[in-house]
Amino acid sequence: MVERRTPIPVGEAVRNLMAYASFGLKEMVALELADGRYLAEDLAADHDIPSFDRSPYDGFAIRSEDTVRASKDHPITFEVTGTIGAGSVYRDQVGPFQAVRIMTGAEIPKSCDAVVMLELTRPFEEDGQAYIEIKRSFKHGDNISFQGEEARKGMILAKRGTYINPGIMALLATFGYSQVPVARKPVIGIIATGSELLDANEPLKPGKIRNSNTYMIPSQIQRAGGEAKYFGKLNDDLDMCCSAVKESLSHVDMLITTGGVSVGDYDYLPAVYEKLGAAVLFNKVAMRPGSVTTVAHLDNKLLFGLSGNPSACYVGFELFVRPIVRTYLFHGKPHLKKVKAILGESFPKPNPFMRFVRAKLTYDEGSLIVSPTGFDKSSAVSSLAEANALIVLQGGTRGYEKGTYVDVLLLEDHQGSEWPW
Amino acid sequence: MVERRTPIPVGEAVRNLMAYASFGLKEMVALELADGRYLAEDLAADHDIPSFDRSPYDGFAIRSEDTVRASKDHPITFEVTGTIGAGSVYRDQVGPFQAVRIMTGAEIPKSCDAVVMLELTRPFEEDGQAYIEIKRSFKHGDNISFQGEEARKGMILAKRGTYINPGIMALLATFGYSQVPVARKPVIGIIATGSELLDANEPLKPGKIRNSNTYMIPSQIQRAGGEAKYFGKLNDDLDMCCSAVKESLSHVDMLITTGGVSVGDYDYLPAVYEKLGAAVLFNKVAMRPGSVTTVAHLDNKLLFGLSGNPSACYVGFELFVRPIVRTYLFHGKPHLKKVKAILGESFPKPNPFMRFVRAKLTYDEGSLIVSPTGFDKSSAVSSLAEANALIVLQGGTRGYEKGTYVDVLLLEDHQGSEWPW
Repeated sequence: MVERRTPIPVGEAVRNLMAYASFGLKEMVALELADGRYLAEDLAADHDIPSFDRSPYDGFAIRSEDTVRASKDHPITFEVTGTIGAGSVYRDQVGPFQAVRIMTGAEIPKSCDAVVMLELTRPFEEDGQAYIEIKRSFKHGDNISFQGEEARKGMILAKRGTYINPGIMALLATFGYSQVPVARKPVIGIIATGSELLDANEPLKPGKIRNSNTYMIPSQIQRAGGEAKYFGKLNDDLDMCCSAVKESLSHVDMLITTGGVSVGDYDYLPAVYEKLGAAVLFNKVAMRPGSVTTVAHLDNKLLFGLSGNPSACYVGFELFVRPIVRTYLFHGKPHLKKVKAILGESFPKPNPFMRFVRAKLTYDEGSLIVSPTGFDKSSAVSSLAEANALIVLQGGTRGYEKGTYVDVLLLEDHQGSEWPW
Repeated sequence: MVERRTPIPVGEAVRNLMAYASFGLKEMVALELADGRYLAEDLAADHDIPSFDRSPYDGFAIRSEDTVRASKDHPITFEVTGTIGAGSVYRDQVGPFQAVRIMTGAEIPKSCDAVVMLELTRPFEEDGQAYIEIKRSFKHGDNISFQGEEARKGMILAKRGTYINPGIMALLATFGYSQVPVARKPVIGIIATGSELLDANEPLKPGKIRNSNTYMIPSQIQRAGGEAKYFGKLNDDLDMCCSAVKESLSHVDMLITTGGVSVGDYDYLPAVYEKLGAAVLFNKVAMRPGSVTTVAHLDNKLLFGLSGNPSACYVGFELFVRPIVRTYLFHGKPHLKKVKAILGESFPKPNPFMRFVRAKLTYDEGSLIVSPTGFDKSSAVSSLAEANALIVLQGGTRGYEKGTYVDVLLLEDHQGSEWPW
């Protein structure tokens, strides 16, 4: 009646799983739709930045040699011979003691080598001709943004797998990516199991709970960078379950089921895996919550059997599904980012197995402080609301004192870790 | 020719601006569309969690008093009288030395007060009747998740203004929010100015640069929680500009223009504001980059005149537009979250004005380290790619040594600060 399972360490489970991780496909999208996606190719500069010597200020372009003798007591007068707006090019020769009015961002005329800021000049007119007076000297190159000083043509400015944020959007536009090669989002199916589950719009009934996982997981999928597809709830008939899993799998890149993975009489997912001929990578992990997390492999696709308990389901997703999704998106650091932080509250429970505690990371004068977000049982939904991190407590420890350094996994980060264990 | 402007401190500019901040509107969306939005009302528990005493494990529900004498040497036998699946209710009386098979999540029968985990029992059958043997004693309440132990009916689990992440989605589902009151996204118009601007799909031309701001700002708007609406580029005719600004404003909640706010001859936005009768709140801020950032007010709506330089535009958005957007979304801490971090590299430049340096925040053994992301001129686009923070360097300082604590504003955070200056 009771199937005996051998728990494997979390690190081993992740390692087994990552052998099946693979890069996904590339697709081209219009620049305005690239925000929030992941680069499928390195982003390279297609030209120098700036692409020409330009003025960082409003002012006058001059020849610095003409200012050598300028001082407060001996201002030097320049004849203003023209104006250069941003985007236009001045082709005339600029001679000795001549100046050209230049706008921010405009190209420096070939014969000039310095810019005098508007505020440092005294403009005047004589017989309809404009002049300026300058009261200090300038050196060759003063107030010029030189071609290529920010970025050289060919430079890689962001690696493939990078999350496209506002800064990357600016770079893509600057380098003429009107179409952007982005990683196709992996489509991840979700099937719920559990006769105790009510939908969000159903009134509560004795013994029943509302189904929260099928709303939580799509949000986790979205945060990881994938696309969720919900296939509804399985019923209790084994044959129907098998065909539902098989059919759903054919429409997605990977499939998540919630619940049905324990060793209880009504937990029939192991039977489904067996009947379908799926190869089970592991079905018990030495961790809390989520010890029953099961991963199997069928038709070159991964099947994730997450626990039906919301917190166990949450942790199972972040540890096992997320790195597969981020790898699909070409990310080189697909795991949750691991950092050290100071425990803000004692955690007195012993940890026979590695424990992942939902927590809130805060900052105090340059230090990272992490505290559990309230109640910590694997069925707890309320502690998930504030959580932006998971505290990792090693198995075989008796409890942790406030003030100890602990490992923390960040939930809302785009950088990631290569290998967190 | 040169308009003289008096720069005001950043804190004063933000304070002036926030006098015009207001909460936005509420709208109802289906739960599956609520992910990534902001709560418009507090999220309250509509029932206790758990809503009944339930079993956290697969096992057997018993009366603890029957186990008092159980030990390794004196196992006690219980008659198994039934099975309770998750979601079903057991209504029969459980008598002395009787046990009921119970699944994870199922309701504890009224007459039982403890659960024995499956692994701690030895099942056997006699004459077709199932029995279990128990080798230790259990106390009243052992292995029971009691009604309300996670959350009590009526408890506020998340405040309005909270970003809806996977944990909040789980709570919304649990508490039956099939429709969710979320903050309507403010619609923010964008108009570009600048004759030097090429579109992303145009080949480079002498003196011209590609327009990156109109792709960067929508991404910043999206990250802040708003919705962008691009109205194209203004041309050089003042009357046409005025009607374009006026017309665009009527379709949005607030309007951003990029460029055209300097004191140069071609920077005509001040003239537009004047002609339209907009009240200018400030047009010069004692900060770098973005000193020319201008904010005006017309027809009860804000007009943000951001610099045309990408980095100045970026900083101007985050300091001035973001808190208006987050307030609109009912967030109580609308400003960028401010933390302290250790400067990872010296910053030798003097800071006549408060300076915002694009930077990358990293973690080192529980400490926060922040380093500038390369080149720092207000036109720099390349340094924006990696930036997840802005270092704040106070005005009137001579430079900062590596190892100094500095103020840092987080760009990718959902918590926010009440008042960062």
